[in-house]
Amino acid sequence: MRGYKKPTVSIIGASGYSGAELTRILLRHPSVKLEKLYAHTQAGKNVRDVYPSLDTDAVYESYDGNLETDLYFLALPHGEALSIVPSLMKAGKTVVDLSGDYRLKDPEEHAAFYSGNKEPGYFLTYGLPELYHDDIKTADAISNPGCYATGIILGIAPLVKKPLKEASIKSVSCSSISGLSGAGKSGKVELSFSEMSGNIRAYKAARHQHTPEILQALDTSTIQPDFGFTFTPMIAPLVRGIYSVLTIQLQKHLSAADLSEHYRMFYRSAPFVRVQKTMPEIQHVVHTNFCDIHVANSADDGTAVIVTSIDNLVKGAAGQAVQNMNIMLGYDETHGLL
Amino acid sequence: MRGYKKPTVSIIGASGYSGAELTRILLRHPSVKLEKLYAHTQAGKNVRDVYPSLDTDAVYESYDGNLETDLYFLALPHGEALSIVPSLMKAGKTVVDLSGDYRLKDPEEHAAFYSGNKEPGYFLTYGLPELYHDDIKTADAISNPGCYATGIILGIAPLVKKPLKEASIKSVSCSSISGLSGAGKSGKVELSFSEMSGNIRAYKAARHQHTPEILQALDTSTIQPDFGFTFTPMIAPLVRGIYSVLTIQLQKHLSAADLSEHYRMFYRSAPFVRVQKTMPEIQHVVHTNFCDIHVANSADDGTAVIVTSIDNLVKGAAGQAVQNMNIMLGYDETHGLL
Amino acid sequence: MRGYKKPTVSIIGASGYSGAELTRILLRHPSVKLEKLYAHTQAGKNVRDVYPSLDTDAVYESYDGNLETDLYFLALPHGEALSIVPSLMKAGKTVVDLSGDYRLKDPEEHAAFYSGNKEPGYFLTYGLPELYHDDIKTADAISNPGCYATGIILGIAPLVKKPLKEASIKSVSCSSISGLSGAGKSGKVELSFSEMSGNIRAYKAARHQHTPEILQALDTSTIQPDFGFTFTPMIAPLVRGIYSVLTIQLQKHLSAADLSEHYRMFYRSAPFVRVQKTMPEIQHVVHTNFCDIHVANSADDGTAVIVTSIDNLVKGAAGQAVQNMNIMLGYDETHGLL
Amino acid sequence: MRGYKKPTVSIIGASGYSGAELTRILLRHPSVKLEKLYAHTQAGKNVRDVYPSLDTDAVYESYDGNLETDLYFLALPHGEALSIVPSLMKAGKTVVDLSGDYRLKDPEEHAAFYSGNKEPGYFLTYGLPELYHDDIKTADAISNPGCYATGIILGIAPLVKKPLKEASIKSVSCSSISGLSGAGKSGKVELSFSEMSGNIRAYKAARHQHTPEILQALDTSTIQPDFGFTFTPMIAPLVRGIYSVLTIQLQKHLSAADLSEHYRMFYRSAPFVRVQKTMPEIQHVVHTNFCDIHVANSADDGTAVIVTSIDNLVKGAAGQAVQNMNIMLGYDETHGLL
Repeated sequence: MRGYKKPTVSIIGASGYSGAELTRILLRHPSVKLEKLYAHTQAGKNVRDVYPSLDTDAVYESYDGNLETDLYFLALPHGEALSIVPSLMKAGKTVVDLSGDYRLKDPEEHAAFYSGNKEPGYFLTYGLPELYHDDIKTADAISNPGCYATGIILGIAPLVKKPLKEASIKSVSCSSISGLSGAGKSGKVELSFSEMSGNIRAYKAARHQHTPEILQALDTSTIQPDFGFTFTPMIAPLVRGIYSVLTIQLQKHLSAADLSEHYRMFYRSAPFVRVQKTMPEIQHVVHTNFCDIHVANSADDGTAVIVTSIDNLVKGAAGQAVQNMNIMLGYDETHGLL
Repeated sequence: MRGYKKPTVSIIGASGYSGAELTRILLRHPSVKLEKLYAHTQAGKNVRDVYPSLDTDAVYESYDGNLETDLYFLALPHGEALSIVPSLMKAGKTVVDLSGDYRLKDPEEHAAFYSGNKEPGYFLTYGLPELYHDDIKTADAISNPGCYATGIILGIAPLVKKPLKEASIKSVSCSSISGLSGAGKSGKVELSFSEMSGNIRAYKAARHQHTPEILQALDTSTIQPDFGFTFTPMIAPLVRGIYSVLTIQLQKHLSAADLSEHYRMFYRSAPFVRVQKTMPEIQHVVHTNFCDIHVANSADDGTAVIVTSIDNLVKGAAGQAVQNMNIMLGYDETHGLL
Repeated sequence: MRGYKKPTVSIIGASGYSGAELTRILLRHPSVKLEKLYAHTQAGKNVRDVYPSLDTDAVYESYDGNLETDLYFLALPHGEALSIVPSLMKAGKTVVDLSGDYRLKDPEEHAAFYSGNKEPGYFLTYGLPELYHDDIKTADAISNPGCYATGIILGIAPLVKKPLKEASIKSVSCSSISGLSGAGKSGKVELSFSEMSGNIRAYKAARHQHTPEILQALDTSTIQPDFGFTFTPMIAPLVRGIYSVLTIQLQKHLSAADLSEHYRMFYRSAPFVRVQKTMPEIQHVVHTNFCDIHVANSADDGTAVIVTSIDNLVKGAAGQAVQNMNIMLGYDETHGLL
Repeated sequence: MRGYKKPTVSIIGASGYSGAELTRILLRHPSVKLEKLYAHTQAGKNVRDVYPSLDTDAVYESYDGNLETDLYFLALPHGEALSIVPSLMKAGKTVVDLSGDYRLKDPEEHAAFYSGNKEPGYFLTYGLPELYHDDIKTADAISNPGCYATGIILGIAPLVKKPLKEASIKSVSCSSISGLSGAGKSGKVELSFSEMSGNIRAYKAARHQHTPEILQALDTSTIQPDFGFTFTPMIAPLVRGIYSVLTIQLQKHLSAADLSEHYRMFYRSAPFVRVQKTMPEIQHVVHTNFCDIHVANSADDGTAVIVTSIDNLVKGAAGQAVQNMNIMLGYDETHGLL
């Protein structure tokens, strides 16, 4: 798809937090031209008036079926991509969808976890480059992973995708803390500063819609039929970031050093995954596309603690979307993202 | 009004932040009995389910014209007390209204600053005990001061109410920073954690409705006809507190020590005003009914800097309301407030 | 110990966050008289100048071996109580020690987790009233539980102390998030606002000193020899609170409703434990002595998610210390704490 | 200085917050090569280990008198540049000093406001490009303005540098709120999260070292001999940003629209100053080099309220330093800064 002229890209759903982050990254990207910013609720407003930190003269528009640009990012609320993606694909456009609409293969799971939304009838290539780089390279349309899912899958994958003979995985208990931008640009009382300052709140314990997404991506069934996975998400008083603590039960004990080396080898070609020697922090990854991973402990009984940290709006959304775009367009994966 | 039985009190508008703070204080108050908690939007819910930190079995009710308790606090949005206070007063009830409905004497000012609300036709005794203790003592109904107004008036009053001959006041420029609970329990996007974390936002510069309230309470016209007063409020990422920086132009220079002594003498009988030798902080007054005041500087050209700090929900609302109640009921001013 | 005169109490280590919270509670306590506030580093300073929100004329002093009051709270850094407690006990004083010095029965564990501190040679009655009420009642000296330990033990105890036949406990994976006051009043760069705002940091994964304390209190060995317990603590940008997510593996599935009912029965006489029907939040317990517990999920495979929430400085330290004092002095457990 | 090879630059004092921000910007700058990162306290450590969000393999070194690069940024504590700048200048190097060491022309003022530091004996070109673009263009060494000074000077300059005949300026009262990164990467208790969360604290009222810097830059003496300027800085619970409320007394009333137009004309060639129609917010400028200015009110009595907002680490430090570098090297002012 590379050519003399820069590919043109548009964002549908550009005024939410993920859309704004996409705008920020794409405005600086050296090899694509950001054309249209679609945002129904802000149509007619200058982007600069809604996000004064974005340096552009663009004006938000309502999406009108435009098919003039080469690539479309969709950063819409769950359910809303379903009426747009098919026509984009039909017209031969390259698509990166950031919603959950095309993530789940199993229609029943889709119905159960995205209730109220009609089913897409099909799913798109899952855009987690660290696991599916080759699929993404040849895909025309990508479903960008969920924010929790990204941090969690990256923390577990080395033990599942390339399991250590001595120590295959039995179960994972995962607690993740998300920044509040993950809830979107929202006017709910329970997301107000007065309610969330100094507060922590878990929700959807073991019932979050990223659970089936994580299990699908790990495809544990083939390796470990009884794999137990329990995921409890929480929100805390921070804007950006997802911090995941994974307590992993292995069949046999492996030293933290050996585990760490295994992770390092597994991700040796992944420019955005950093297997760290010290404990990850949100502040180390915020505003970057990095995922920091640390083997925090490995006990004699086979219980390992893995901690991962990402920026939910970057590696968990807009940054990963651009990483996918780079791969699809044949650019270096990190182009415009460092 | 004191008798063998504890006076009974009710709160109308009990589920907002001021109402909840009133509930907290009154549940612990040794000499009144909290009877009814009225809150239209939460009617039927257990108080404990809405505010689990409040230890009570009470249930919110819609206000139904009840006249059975001795005293009523009204903590309603501006405009809503107007239809309730007259009937309470007619029935001989003691009233403390926390809204702005009965604060301004001048109907034109009321119309200008509380537009959309009908005028009360009269006003109530202004419940700032440090200035109007005697009036409050004999009043049946009180208009509780605004939160900004409380901190600002207390910072200026000593120079106006008992002016220093050598150095009468010429003008005041005031910047105040409020915690976000001052905006109420609200679901506006611009008050969300994601928008307000790390953010500051001024608003209504020189146009805030507490400006006429402050000038009325200071009654500067009799002393200094050309008195200039400019007030700029701001919100910042904190939940509670109002911090006011008053840059005061005096006719003549007075040393900071002399000014400080003047303030100390002025407030020598005010148990909740502390003239401090060091800079006030929000954390020193939060969850208390204190107002900390400090003479931060006095320059040769007659410019003094006075800093005041209160908790907007306590001294700026519920605590002061109870202070007023104590005075009206003949209790010690500090009863149940330390 | 009850008598005509109020018992007198002193605090040794009164100027840290736990000591200040103790001061706050004891100043309001109706049935004890707070006498001395010992704080080596602040000796000679007015309490009011260090904590202006505390309404007292007291002055901090260096502890000088005083034995004049009836009861002593010790809120010292780990290791420092060891040289004071023995003489207090010898003199027949009632003691509540908030440090970790007398918590662990096993000298080897003590050495391993509080390295550098000499061993006490003995331990004190473990002051978790919900489990050890009768022991506390007759004790002269109490070791007050750790903050994490309190929230975690209370979340697991019903399944261990009174195990459900159908579903005995196999393992617990626990992630806890602590407010930063838990790290003490400290000038470390990594605890500064600039470093911790918007940040999360795990530490001591599976190596925190509360791990042996939790296992000792649960005494799992008698019930479940292979009991696996993995605890990962984190700090987050909040001042107060400990939020614990316990992923518990049971032998058999029990419905969330049944588990919840079991918890409710187990704590039916515990005034400060509230088994809630909705998800706990820090803001629901902050500044209170409550521990909120919620059965957040129970999956078919026997994995239950239990969430608990406390204020680390109240139920996790000073409030629980006063609760212990109440029991030792024969008062109602909740006296001065609601 | 422009040539075939990119100019090389080094940072002396690279591990503080301003130094890290400089590193971030310079790593992305398309037309300079960042060579050396000097940081005495972190010498020997990988930059990535201290600031994992910085994507570089560089290692911090102790400054050893190196003179090999073309340009040096100094981001040292006040006083420490004095022993380095002279040798850099002697060697013909281009210098941008971010400290206060070379800002004040008057040695007595320098002694009074930077006590304890020896005097430089001379001062450097004041690097505020919006006022001194031409001087900067020809300078070899620049003193980069203070963070408060930048936001305040930009808010007042249009009324002083190009005064409106009808309404010359009489006095300014200024309250500024700074994010805590302004205090540096510091381990002081009073800057800890536990002390500053939910807190506001003013300091150095009318005594801050930026006061003489502001007056010197405005050079008010030539225009308005009695110009009164009172500046009260505050810290609040945010990491980045300086928000300034300027209450300005003019000789005569001018409408807000006219004032706004005057500001717009004054800054029509300044790419980083945005005269806004709505109230500035910190979040609109954070991580950018913009200064937002808004005429928030203009009252009949001649009192205008001007509000300005910058990121203290960008326009208030590192960004402005690079802006100065761009001008000195003949690049576009905005190069690498948008």
